[in-house]
Amino acid sequence: MLNVEADYHQNQMPPKAPLKPLLVRAFSGEPIERPPVWLMRQAGRYMHEYQAVRQKTDFMTLCKTPALAAEVSMQPILAFGMDAVIVFSDILPPAEAMGLALTFGDKGPCFPNALLPDQVASLRIPEPEADLGFMLETLKILRRELSSPEHQDRALIGFAGAPWTLATYMIEGAIASEKGRHLHKTKAWLYNRPSVLHALLEKLALTIGRYLIAQIHAGAQAVQLFDTWAGHLSAREYAEFALPYQRRVISAVRQAHPEIPVIMYARGMRGCLPLLTQSGATVLSLDEFSDLSESRSALDANGFADLALQGNLDPVALWQADPERLTELTKQTLASGGSRRYGFNLGHGVLQYTPRDHVARVVDTAQAFRWQAP
Amino acid sequence: MLNVEADYHQNQMPPKAPLKPLLVRAFSGEPIERPPVWLMRQAGRYMHEYQAVRQKTDFMTLCKTPALAAEVSMQPILAFGMDAVIVFSDILPPAEAMGLALTFGDKGPCFPNALLPDQVASLRIPEPEADLGFMLETLKILRRELSSPEHQDRALIGFAGAPWTLATYMIEGAIASEKGRHLHKTKAWLYNRPSVLHALLEKLALTIGRYLIAQIHAGAQAVQLFDTWAGHLSAREYAEFALPYQRRVISAVRQAHPEIPVIMYARGMRGCLPLLTQSGATVLSLDEFSDLSESRSALDANGFADLALQGNLDPVALWQADPERLTELTKQTLASGGSRRYGFNLGHGVLQYTPRDHVARVVDTAQAFRWQAP
Repeated sequence: MLNVEADYHQNQMPPKAPLKPLLVRAFSGEPIERPPVWLMRQAGRYMHEYQAVRQKTDFMTLCKTPALAAEVSMQPILAFGMDAVIVFSDILPPAEAMGLALTFGDKGPCFPNALLPDQVASLRIPEPEADLGFMLETLKILRRELSSPEHQDRALIGFAGAPWTLATYMIEGAIASEKGRHLHKTKAWLYNRPSVLHALLEKLALTIGRYLIAQIHAGAQAVQLFDTWAGHLSAREYAEFALPYQRRVISAVRQAHPEIPVIMYARGMRGCLPLLTQSGATVLSLDEFSDLSESRSALDANGFADLALQGNLDPVALWQADPERLTELTKQTLASGGSRRYGFNLGHGVLQYTPRDHVARVVDTAQAFRWQAP
Repeated sequence: MLNVEADYHQNQMPPKAPLKPLLVRAFSGEPIERPPVWLMRQAGRYMHEYQAVRQKTDFMTLCKTPALAAEVSMQPILAFGMDAVIVFSDILPPAEAMGLALTFGDKGPCFPNALLPDQVASLRIPEPEADLGFMLETLKILRRELSSPEHQDRALIGFAGAPWTLATYMIEGAIASEKGRHLHKTKAWLYNRPSVLHALLEKLALTIGRYLIAQIHAGAQAVQLFDTWAGHLSAREYAEFALPYQRRVISAVRQAHPEIPVIMYARGMRGCLPLLTQSGATVLSLDEFSDLSESRSALDANGFADLALQGNLDPVALWQADPERLTELTKQTLASGGSRRYGFNLGHGVLQYTPRDHVARVVDTAQAFRWQAP
């Protein structure tokens, strides 16, 4: 009877992870003998396994087909053995679920009809289970796969775009263009229609908070919020248009699941650590321009000793550095991260041109690393 | 006799400016009633006068034809009345004069054959008068034009790219591409061939130091060094590959002409003020992400009260903000700059899409501004 019931539940619900994986232990401040290792955008075009899937499937179909998205999420784990799986998806589906049509163009996903100010009021707040079920289903599949003994020390990470960054994509439509990279439409809202921008950010914060909580229900053991375009804001603008909405998302997640590490990645914000500490996140993921050891010291000296760090090898080094130099840079990054509340990662996502033996080298080097006695 | 001699000299040499123009007085700490106003890339595609010249002439020919380059340099002054003229040119001709062929492609000037490591040794150090005479001739023409009574309070500004930024252009060939914007070739040198990169930067520092001194001899009353790609470096990398070569250039200029303000623009370095103070510049030009008033306070508190500031209205605000909002943002910037050793400018160059009435509004607002009694 018990077995039958267990099997029944296994098909309906993700099994609980048997123990806290390395990444969660590290970010919670538990003693660990080496930092956990994963890489932003670790599944993607640099892998021939990924290219093989993409030859049969377009990007959006891949994101929306849980079996395929789960397969692609696991590819880097099977090839390189990272300590965490980040669910394969894109940051834009929640905006699509709010009512803005999404397509996949030459240069990635985009909104062919950019959002106009008078459309903000009619955007809906999605129900994650009904509207973004594909992502949750992918997490459930991954949760089951990671419950096998060989994977049980690997963490499953969910993610979402932060409200400011999602707003820029919705308002610009396409960011890849020469004109779009200035975020000029978003800045026009910011300068001329700040209350409409705030209304959009409110809706996004509510949407993303619910979405991340649903991801945790589906099996995510940590979540990362990506504010990739934060660096396009001055500190004053960041404090008004990015930070309060990060806080709203993170506070919702923390209230519902205080045990779950929340990782905040705000790109282009070096030198602004005091602002970053205010998001309420339990982990700050630093870009490659920031300094891990200086940030650690500054956090410790200012009452943020409990805040963990993640990062920050330059993805261009991963792509371009010669093998021995890459090993050296990886070790420097690890040393800079320190022996407490730190996880190894890149400063940004893996670039599509990256040789896979570079990825293998970095993961192997980081996993062979051990803290020296002080 | 005297008149004849004066006329003779007028045709041979640039006449001395009769008094220190507002910008020089401001940056030297002399009392001024309002800050000087000019805009980076104030001459360019957003002006129909410029477009008219470009319809007859390609970009490189324009740069290399002193009469035309001087005409274009004066266009924004005649249209908007800024307090300084920056000589119209590009940052790449000195690299061309070192021996790397330069062409003008769809997306601006580029080096069709990117520099290879084994070519560094054969790069020559140009003689500014012989190899970059067109730029010096343009300055001499402008010096003469600015000596008329209506212009004599306007400063003439020379400029050059900083060694690190010039090196990235030479090594990448073209930066506009999706791949090139990561500066991956330059980073490959940085990670794998640092001594070759240092050798290139040495040659560039020598070249640029001489070039700026020659510009001062030709009539420039202030010079600006542009390290536009500084933000692609971590603080540690900046301290190794950008800062020492800025210092070398600036020290050469300061030694030869201690009376000339040297303006340092390093983009993407917010939060790194202690590094910026080490260049030896007398003026720091801040990008739109930095905070003028916080920077002023930090400089004053750390023994850099003599360092002047320039900046930093967002060029996207200049393009996109509604007129009244633009006036307000201009006033905020002016207030943030403070009443001492400050010059109004943008955080980066004027964008080509900018409406000219926005430029007129900002210049008029800034020139109507007066310091309040404290």
